[in-house]
Amino acid sequence: MEEDFIQVFVTGGTFDKEYNYITGELYFKDTHLKDMFERGRCTLDVDIKTLMMVDSLEMTDADREIIIHSCKKTKAKRVLITHGTDRMVATARALACGEIVKTIVLTGAMIPYAFGTSSDGFFNLGSALAFVQVLPPGVYICMNGRYFHWDAVEKDTSTGYFVPKNT
Amino acid sequence: MEEDFIQVFVTGGTFDKEYNYITGELYFKDTHLKDMFERGRCTLDVDIKTLMMVDSLEMTDADREIIIHSCKKTKAKRVLITHGTDRMVATARALACGEIVKTIVLTGAMIPYAFGTSSDGFFNLGSALAFVQVLPPGVYICMNGRYFHWDAVEKDTSTGYFVPKNT
Amino acid sequence: MEEDFIQVFVTGGTFDKEYNYITGELYFKDTHLKDMFERGRCTLDVDIKTLMMVDSLEMTDADREIIIHSCKKTKAKRVLITHGTDRMVATARALACGEIVKTIVLTGAMIPYAFGTSSDGFFNLGSALAFVQVLPPGVYICMNGRYFHWDAVEKDTSTGYFVPKNT
Amino acid sequence: MEEDFIQVFVTGGTFDKEYNYITGELYFKDTHLKDMFERGRCTLDVDIKTLMMVDSLEMTDADREIIIHSCKKTKAKRVLITHGTDRMVATARALACGEIVKTIVLTGAMIPYAFGTSSDGFFNLGSALAFVQVLPPGVYICMNGRYFHWDAVEKDTSTGYFVPKNT
Repeated sequence: MEEDFIQVFVTGGTFDKEYNYITGELYFKDTHLKDMFERGRCTLDVDIKTLMMVDSLEMTDADREIIIHSCKKTKAKRVLITHGTDRMVATARALACGEIVKTIVLTGAMIPYAFGTSSDGFFNLGSALAFVQVLPPGVYICMNGRYFHWDAVEKDTSTGYFVPKNT
Repeated sequence: MEEDFIQVFVTGGTFDKEYNYITGELYFKDTHLKDMFERGRCTLDVDIKTLMMVDSLEMTDADREIIIHSCKKTKAKRVLITHGTDRMVATARALACGEIVKTIVLTGAMIPYAFGTSSDGFFNLGSALAFVQVLPPGVYICMNGRYFHWDAVEKDTSTGYFVPKNT
Repeated sequence: MEEDFIQVFVTGGTFDKEYNYITGELYFKDTHLKDMFERGRCTLDVDIKTLMMVDSLEMTDADREIIIHSCKKTKAKRVLITHGTDRMVATARALACGEIVKTIVLTGAMIPYAFGTSSDGFFNLGSALAFVQVLPPGVYICMNGRYFHWDAVEKDTSTGYFVPKNT
Repeated sequence: MEEDFIQVFVTGGTFDKEYNYITGELYFKDTHLKDMFERGRCTLDVDIKTLMMVDSLEMTDADREIIIHSCKKTKAKRVLITHGTDRMVATARALACGEIVKTIVLTGAMIPYAFGTSSDGFFNLGSALAFVQVLPPGVYICMNGRYFHWDAVEKDTSTGYFVPKNT
C-alpha cells in the first residue's frame, strides 16, 4: 500500500538548530533528519518533508494551519513531526482539534542534534519513530523516552522535562 | 506498582564496545547505558543490570540460560536487552522457548556508541525503549527503526540489516 | 627548573561556552581545558588556571589588568591564554604594552568545544601549545593553524578568519 | 614562492582508520585530513597527498622508500606526515638517513579521528602543523603536545606515550 509509508514533517525547533560562528547565535540551515535516519540505519519507508524551519516560540496560527493541512493531505496514516519543545503542546492541541484519524507523534530536542554527543535528538527520533508505528490514531507527544496523549502533558519550563498534566 | 518499571539487561555486543588504543582492538569496559538514558533525558523508571559483557559470537548456552533466568526472575513485565547483533536472533529464539509472559525487546548496534556521531546505538535504544512500552507480551528484535517478532527476522550478514525472514 | 612548565590562563570566550537547554542561550560553566589536555594525551608540565569566564565583548579594562598581572606574576616563561576571538587582538595589544619578557600565545575558537565534532577548539589548542614552546618571547595570536605577531593581525568579522593586518 | 606551501603526506595509521560494521574490524577508506584542515579553519597553503593507507606495523622498506622519495621530490620546504605510531620512529630514522634539508614532522593518533570526541588526532594535527612551520630543518616526531628529534624518542608500548629515549 502506498499508505504504509511514514510521513515525517520537519518544522524546525531546537532539534535542527545550528551555531552561527559569525554572530554567535543559533539559526536554521537544513534539516538533519535525512542524515539521522541513515545513521540510524532505518529501513522503513519514510518520506521527509520540511514544512518550515522555525523556533516554536515564533510559530504563528498560519504555521499551525500549514501543519494541520499537511497532516490531512498526506496519504500516510502515520505522521511524525519534529517541533520546538516550547509550543509543542499547543500545536498538538491544534492538531487534535483538526479531527484527523491518523497517528500523529510530535517530538523535538532540548539540545540541537548538531551539538554532537550531548544532544537528546537522536534518541527522541528513535522513540518517536517506534511510537508512531504502534500507537492507535490520535495525537501524541514523545519526549524523555515516553509518549503522552496531547491533552495529558505539559512542559515543565524550569527543568525542560515533559510531565503528566494535572487535570 | 513495583512491576511498572522497565528492566534493562546489558549483555555486551558492539553497542558497548570500546577502542583499546594500546592493542588497537575492541574490548569491553563499562556499559554506557546509564549515560545514554541520562543524555536521552529519560524520565521512565528504568533499572539497568549488567548480566555479562560479551561479543554475541562468543555467547554460550550457559550465558543464554542466565539471560532467560534473569528475564523470568525480574519483577518487571517489560524487559529491554542490549545484545550483539550476530547472535541476537538465536538468543531471541531461546527466550521465546522460555515461555515468559513478558514483553522482551532485544536491540544492539552496528557501530559502538563510544565511536561518537557515527553510531546507531542511541537511536536504537530510543526505538527499543518505545517498543517495549507498547508491544504486547512476546519476544521482539528492534533494529533499523523497526520491530520484528523473534521468528520472523534474520540478519543479512552482507549488509548488516535485519530483514523479514522468508518462512 | 620550576620555570619550565607552561602556564595556561583561561579567560572564557566561545572556546568554553556551553548550551543552556532551558534558556536556549550560551553560557559558561567550567572550562574544558583539563579534559582537552588529557584527551590530547599531553605529557607536558601544564598548569591551568581560570582567571575569568567572560565573553571577550564584555571584557573590561579591569579584566585585562588581571590578565597582564597574572602573566607577570607566574613563574612560567611560556603562557597560553584562551580568549574570545572578538577582542583577542585588543588583549594582545594590552599585553604587549605590559613589557613582559615571556612567550605569550592567545588562542580561541569559533565554535564551542562542547559542540562536538564541528569545533575548531581542539585543533587550535594543539597549535597554540606547540607555538608557545618554540616561539621567542613576544605576544602572539594563534588561529587558523597560524601564528601572528600581536600588531600584525586583525579578525575579519565577516568571515571569522584572522588575517594579516595592512599596516 | 611556490615553496612556501606545506606539504602533507598521508600514510595511514590509526589516525585515518575507520570501523567496518560488517566485519567489526578497523580498515582504511579515505583520509580525513582535508576535512580536518577545514574544520580547523586553517588558512595556510596546504597540499595534501595520500602516499599510502597502511598500518605502520605492515609498512615495508619499499613503502619507506616512497615516503623518502616523496619528501625529496616535493618543492615544499616543510613536510607534515601522518603515520601509524608503532613504527613512526623507524620511518623518522629512515628519513633522517635520507639527508633531506627540510623540516619534516611526523604525527599520528592513538585513537582514530573517526571515533569522535575521544580521539587525540585533531589536537596532534594542530600541534604538528605549528611545529612544522617554526622548527629548523630536521626530522621530528610530534605526539602528546610535544616535539622530539627523531633520534631522541621512543614509544612506550605499555602506555602509548612517546618519551625521551635514554641514549
